[in-house]
Amino acid sequence: MSSPGDFTLEATDGKARAATLVTAHGAIQTPVFMPVGTLGTVKGVDPDELKAIGTQILLGNTYHLHLKPGEDLVAELGGLHRFMAWDGPILTDSGGFQIFSLADTRTIDDDGVSFRSVYDGDLVRLRPEDAMAIQAALGSDIAMCLDEVPKPDAPLAELAAAVERTTRWAARCKATTPAPGQLRFGIVQGGVEPALRERSASDLLEIGFDGYAIGGLAVGEEREATFRITDSTAALLPVDQPRYFMGIGDPEGILRVIAAGVDMFDCVLPTRLGRTGAAMTSNGRLNMRNAAFARDPEPLDPRCGCPTCQRFSRAYIRHLVMQKELLGMRLLSVHNMAFLLALCTAAREAIIEQRFDDFLATSLERLTTGAD
Amino acid sequence: MSSPGDFTLEATDGKARAATLVTAHGAIQTPVFMPVGTLGTVKGVDPDELKAIGTQILLGNTYHLHLKPGEDLVAELGGLHRFMAWDGPILTDSGGFQIFSLADTRTIDDDGVSFRSVYDGDLVRLRPEDAMAIQAALGSDIAMCLDEVPKPDAPLAELAAAVERTTRWAARCKATTPAPGQLRFGIVQGGVEPALRERSASDLLEIGFDGYAIGGLAVGEEREATFRITDSTAALLPVDQPRYFMGIGDPEGILRVIAAGVDMFDCVLPTRLGRTGAAMTSNGRLNMRNAAFARDPEPLDPRCGCPTCQRFSRAYIRHLVMQKELLGMRLLSVHNMAFLLALCTAAREAIIEQRFDDFLATSLERLTTGAD
Repeated sequence: MSSPGDFTLEATDGKARAATLVTAHGAIQTPVFMPVGTLGTVKGVDPDELKAIGTQILLGNTYHLHLKPGEDLVAELGGLHRFMAWDGPILTDSGGFQIFSLADTRTIDDDGVSFRSVYDGDLVRLRPEDAMAIQAALGSDIAMCLDEVPKPDAPLAELAAAVERTTRWAARCKATTPAPGQLRFGIVQGGVEPALRERSASDLLEIGFDGYAIGGLAVGEEREATFRITDSTAALLPVDQPRYFMGIGDPEGILRVIAAGVDMFDCVLPTRLGRTGAAMTSNGRLNMRNAAFARDPEPLDPRCGCPTCQRFSRAYIRHLVMQKELLGMRLLSVHNMAFLLALCTAAREAIIEQRFDDFLATSLERLTTGAD
Repeated sequence: MSSPGDFTLEATDGKARAATLVTAHGAIQTPVFMPVGTLGTVKGVDPDELKAIGTQILLGNTYHLHLKPGEDLVAELGGLHRFMAWDGPILTDSGGFQIFSLADTRTIDDDGVSFRSVYDGDLVRLRPEDAMAIQAALGSDIAMCLDEVPKPDAPLAELAAAVERTTRWAARCKATTPAPGQLRFGIVQGGVEPALRERSASDLLEIGFDGYAIGGLAVGEEREATFRITDSTAALLPVDQPRYFMGIGDPEGILRVIAAGVDMFDCVLPTRLGRTGAAMTSNGRLNMRNAAFARDPEPLDPRCGCPTCQRFSRAYIRHLVMQKELLGMRLLSVHNMAFLLALCTAAREAIIEQRFDDFLATSLERLTTGAD
């Protein structure tokens, strides 16, 4: 019998890993991309569609769901799974990232953070205990600790203080009572400073969590620094527990963090691109407003087996995008997510078959040069 | 072997009819509601979803598709069915209604009409022959003749002139070559003047079409006049051919035109209401912004078996509507169409079982009083 938190490492190839993580709502095969359902919905996409394209786990947003419609309402309606009609695993972030990136008016002290709601300007107080209580009420399968996310260019002392506060808050998060079967992940901070990352990881490992996230990256620092720090931080984390890179969704970025030994990642990029008329493909990004697609009978990506590519031409999708038709945003969002999910499945197969390096090189070459 | 145009009247109950119409893309069981796919898409809804809720036939829009993306492009991509991935029957309107209602700058002469495109202001010329050629290029299963739609309060002489022009144009439409298997319907005009309606119907019957539409109603005239004229006009049309009321989509209106002996009808109402946060139910319309639904665990309509009602609560849909989430528009649009399609199926059963009067009375009572 497996139980939530069970983590089976099935194969490694270099640093890349293929594993299975058990949650209260089923097992996840990694590496895994998690589509983002900020407000209890992946924008424009139906949960049955998400299932059909192979989505294994969704991300929900503590910050947003706390404000709209509120976790009490969600709990009263049977929890987030029931509320949004998604019976698979859900990970909820802690709200840390939103509080530190969205709010101009936040004030932070050691007990917690105060900020103004993006919805109505109301003053909201969030302590580590609150973040965990909200996630327990939502009933997610994986809850994230509340962390302090410093700016990537913050002075060293500020980065160090954020690490220390993140540690103290993580201990308080650990002391709360989770929902039945709910896993809890700590979040490693420390900017692009290897010593601080080491300190943060060591602190969190001492407290002990069901998995560990790498936070505070892909927030404006140089791209090579992102991957360098991911690489060194992943190496600090336990081999036998899941590793989650918070917020990366471009195909190249996903491949690079998989190569560093990361198992899980999320991003709004595929749906945001979908709503703005762009398609992710194995030969790079397509702007569907481009007149070159006006009479193009090909699918978005001839290699793709998604419901969009199986039925619709680039010409049709361009027509929808040009006319601002809702279906265009939807078909592109579905395709972009399906593309990332298939990329992860292909990466997993390559890892299991011990040919990840080749797969990585070929994929990056196609993505960046458009070569077939 | 059945062939396009075959029309089998299976039952009548009073004036109400249950029939089957064969088209080149399959048979339609009537009474039938036709969802509107103006620009080659029912706004926000996928063709597979339309199938799942029992959609039998879609409506496409000659005016809009001629302007965006143009019938040549659609034909090059394999025709409208292939373009929008809908393999069931499609009816295309002629553009008459749009030209007369959308364009302030139209000029009409006996040869045709000139108007400015709503998309880019370009001057466009449309003659009866053009309207039929566009519909042939789109490859629809049922093409509508170009008609002149007068204002409902136009003077009698203007109404009479529109009838005469509609007749002359209908003859020219009939003289064109349709797409293989494409049926053609004439459109009866005449405002709310029974004598003009009689004249128009008689003229069109003499030319001879595969079916007949009642046009120029539900355009601003009093509601009782709509039904009175529908009743008298339907009585003028052949028993053994389909009758189409152009543009009615509220549940009460649909039931009343079915009672008058109409077989087919279309309207953007269910999707337009869906995008503005309203639900059609058997107990009347619900404004999903209403705070009363904030914690309501019931489906939109407890009697409804649609994919929205089978999975989602009013509370969830209200949350989506309040947050302007695309999924809310979509779930409401799907439900509203499913509701109208189920209403037609129920009407058909009642007609076949010779209990349409009771069904009509009970349905209207529920719709207007909210009684259970």
